[in-house]
Amino acid sequence: MENIKQYVQENKDRFISELIELLKIPSVSADSAYAHDVILTAEAVKESLEKAGCDFVELCETPGYPIVYGEKMIDKNLPTVLVYGHYDVQPADPVELWTSPPFEPVIKKTEIHPEGAIFARGACDDKGQMYMHVKAFEYMIQNDCLPCNVKFMIEGEEEVGSKSLSWFVERNQEKLANDVILISDTGMISNTQPSITTGLRGLSYVEVEVTGPNRDLHSGLYGGAVANPINVLTKMIASLHDENNHITVPGFYDKVEELSTVERAEMAKAPFSLDNYKKALDIDEVEGEAGYVTNERNSIRPTLDVNGIWGGYTGEGAKTVIASKAFAKISMRLVPNQDWEEITQLFKTHFESIAPKSVKVKVTPHHGGQGYVTPIDSVGYRAANKAYTETFGVPAIPVRSGGSIPIVALFEKELKSKTILMGFGLDSDAIHSPNEHFGIFNYLKGIETIPLFYKYFVEMNK
Amino acid sequence: MENIKQYVQENKDRFISELIELLKIPSVSADSAYAHDVILTAEAVKESLEKAGCDFVELCETPGYPIVYGEKMIDKNLPTVLVYGHYDVQPADPVELWTSPPFEPVIKKTEIHPEGAIFARGACDDKGQMYMHVKAFEYMIQNDCLPCNVKFMIEGEEEVGSKSLSWFVERNQEKLANDVILISDTGMISNTQPSITTGLRGLSYVEVEVTGPNRDLHSGLYGGAVANPINVLTKMIASLHDENNHITVPGFYDKVEELSTVERAEMAKAPFSLDNYKKALDIDEVEGEAGYVTNERNSIRPTLDVNGIWGGYTGEGAKTVIASKAFAKISMRLVPNQDWEEITQLFKTHFESIAPKSVKVKVTPHHGGQGYVTPIDSVGYRAANKAYTETFGVPAIPVRSGGSIPIVALFEKELKSKTILMGFGLDSDAIHSPNEHFGIFNYLKGIETIPLFYKYFVEMNK
Repeated sequence: MENIKQYVQENKDRFISELIELLKIPSVSADSAYAHDVILTAEAVKESLEKAGCDFVELCETPGYPIVYGEKMIDKNLPTVLVYGHYDVQPADPVELWTSPPFEPVIKKTEIHPEGAIFARGACDDKGQMYMHVKAFEYMIQNDCLPCNVKFMIEGEEEVGSKSLSWFVERNQEKLANDVILISDTGMISNTQPSITTGLRGLSYVEVEVTGPNRDLHSGLYGGAVANPINVLTKMIASLHDENNHITVPGFYDKVEELSTVERAEMAKAPFSLDNYKKALDIDEVEGEAGYVTNERNSIRPTLDVNGIWGGYTGEGAKTVIASKAFAKISMRLVPNQDWEEITQLFKTHFESIAPKSVKVKVTPHHGGQGYVTPIDSVGYRAANKAYTETFGVPAIPVRSGGSIPIVALFEKELKSKTILMGFGLDSDAIHSPNEHFGIFNYLKGIETIPLFYKYFVEMNK
Repeated sequence: MENIKQYVQENKDRFISELIELLKIPSVSADSAYAHDVILTAEAVKESLEKAGCDFVELCETPGYPIVYGEKMIDKNLPTVLVYGHYDVQPADPVELWTSPPFEPVIKKTEIHPEGAIFARGACDDKGQMYMHVKAFEYMIQNDCLPCNVKFMIEGEEEVGSKSLSWFVERNQEKLANDVILISDTGMISNTQPSITTGLRGLSYVEVEVTGPNRDLHSGLYGGAVANPINVLTKMIASLHDENNHITVPGFYDKVEELSTVERAEMAKAPFSLDNYKKALDIDEVEGEAGYVTNERNSIRPTLDVNGIWGGYTGEGAKTVIASKAFAKISMRLVPNQDWEEITQLFKTHFESIAPKSVKVKVTPHHGGQGYVTPIDSVGYRAANKAYTETFGVPAIPVRSGGSIPIVALFEKELKSKTILMGFGLDSDAIHSPNEHFGIFNYLKGIETIPLFYKYFVEMNK
């Protein structure tokens, strides 16, 4: 694979323009208004796998959006790598905060990305990182150096809980049989310090609805005399954290894995500047669970955040109304050993129990997933680390991510194999935010690093 | 005025169809998208006053929407009645909860309105009640029995704080000189028990904005490590009431008028069934300030209600985001002696003071107005009561309303005259809510009662 650098240099313009075409399709899985575009994206991914050199590619029907499956089987006695990614993206709103339209990709230089970065929704999460694998695969085919079998499974519902993927995986263990699962849907510390995500948080996402009077009321005639569902909802949500920012849901922490002081000391070695962190977010103070530092709060500790809240009059000007209903979307990030379905039930029971008699409360679970930890002594981890070391010149650091890729736990359960999270994005890429982008450097570095993982993974398996 | 009943009977179909035409124009003053319709409504009102018999009618320019002014001066030695009303309406949302389009008026029979009621935004508040005065005036002109001078001042910004009206009144004391101000923008107890509103609550309406990080963040990567503006906002709002539902803003109650036990006993005489009240709203429990009953909580006591709240992802499905900003619209109903500007300042100071260092807070006052109390021994009150007694067969009961008509206090200050609130609506008319309606009975009864007020007011002034 000596010529990988050269191949990337010769083809980088095409690699970029192909990705840009993919980013132009608004595959927002959370909003049914984009259903057609999500399908178009699936078809585009299918075509790209065929062109790259898969023997067999298909759109697998599911209860939801189709899963793109492709494979190149060269020898059943060789190991098989299963590449997972997703072609759906987060909603783009608030659209007004984008400096360029979210689905009209443009390349702009930034301080962190002097070679330029592609700005578009999904540029990093996950179209860009997923497509690195397609192009790395293309390289190995074109240069006849694919050392093992490859399977691709690219889904379209990752941003809404991967329901159909679970359905699909449970029904296709044999088809998806593999020796290691490779995913690029996470980040690394910096462009000079690669890292491999060894831990992920689980997730429980619920929607709550508080209903007071059976209709909107005039706040003058009824104000002060009936429970205001919005005021009640704020009281209920406020009570979910105590003064130390501990979550008050009974039983919430029962199964939380407590890290040893040694492990916490290891984590503390990762380079981090609180000042830069605060500066980057333009905040005067961080806030979080007492007794833990920032890098622990967003990785080894469970959290509860309101992701959306709405009720009453939210338009221009003023409306003196008491709303009949108030709503909130609430997600909890979970750590290994916390079972998301159990936590969801604990939340539901607690939230209903703290509702005053003056309102009715409904808790609707959206989706969730388990946390995950991958051992750093596994062949997969060592192969990935060797690949990073070769392309970046320094070994990767193992880090616990605060994010969730619920299906990683599902894969281990259903497919009995470990997942290696080779992320090439940066925290500053603004995934899930306006102006999401992905560095050209990172994109090309990923394409360059991935084939080396294949090489070392096969060698180490011999 | 013996033939007033007959005149109403002969012309009621026309009275209804004329009102329906007026209700078809969506004069939503809170939303600039309807600016053109608001103007069209002003012109329609102007035309109706000309047709009804005013000598002089004009659209008075203001910094905002025009004020329709009309007059019929018959003898400068006779008293002058100034009729106030408004032609703008509340926003119609949530539109999906309307059983018929808000601006396509239809007549439907209801339990309370067996003769039918007109369903449309503004049917009762205030187009219907305002138009009663135009038709009552028409009757007195047609039958040559107008006993005094009349001035009409119909504004287009009542639902957004009457800013331009204050501006106009302060500059036109002479033009608006009068002996009594007559307003129908309130309700009465029932169709068999008329009442006159003698007290109104003041209002302070503010919008608050909580800003955390400078952009929306991925809740997995940042959750638990930075302040979530929505969680912070809920905590701040929740803290505005204590466990007894007292408002915690320092100084808020300092000037609140405390009613004597005698006065409270008087109030308690008004017919009221808590069971029916709860049944009508479909709630199991009422909720309000400890130490006061429902009819006190919504009339003689100040309140604080969130009228709208929003932040983060509120669309379909799930988005795991920590919003950069969270917002709420908050209104406080004030009682006589509380100064709305002082209360607004107290709120602003307090709300800013309780914000944690991890966020920035902005409080923007929207508008407000003072509370008001009218004496029941005034000529105006006695004339109104006599008119009600004649048309309903029973005397009116004086009641304190929880609503606010801030300009009533302004009128007393600028025009030195008392206001009589002759309301003909019912609590069940759903003003400010979906399916607002106004009973045909109430509409016609109003047209029938108003001329009698003129008659008795002039007689009592002799």
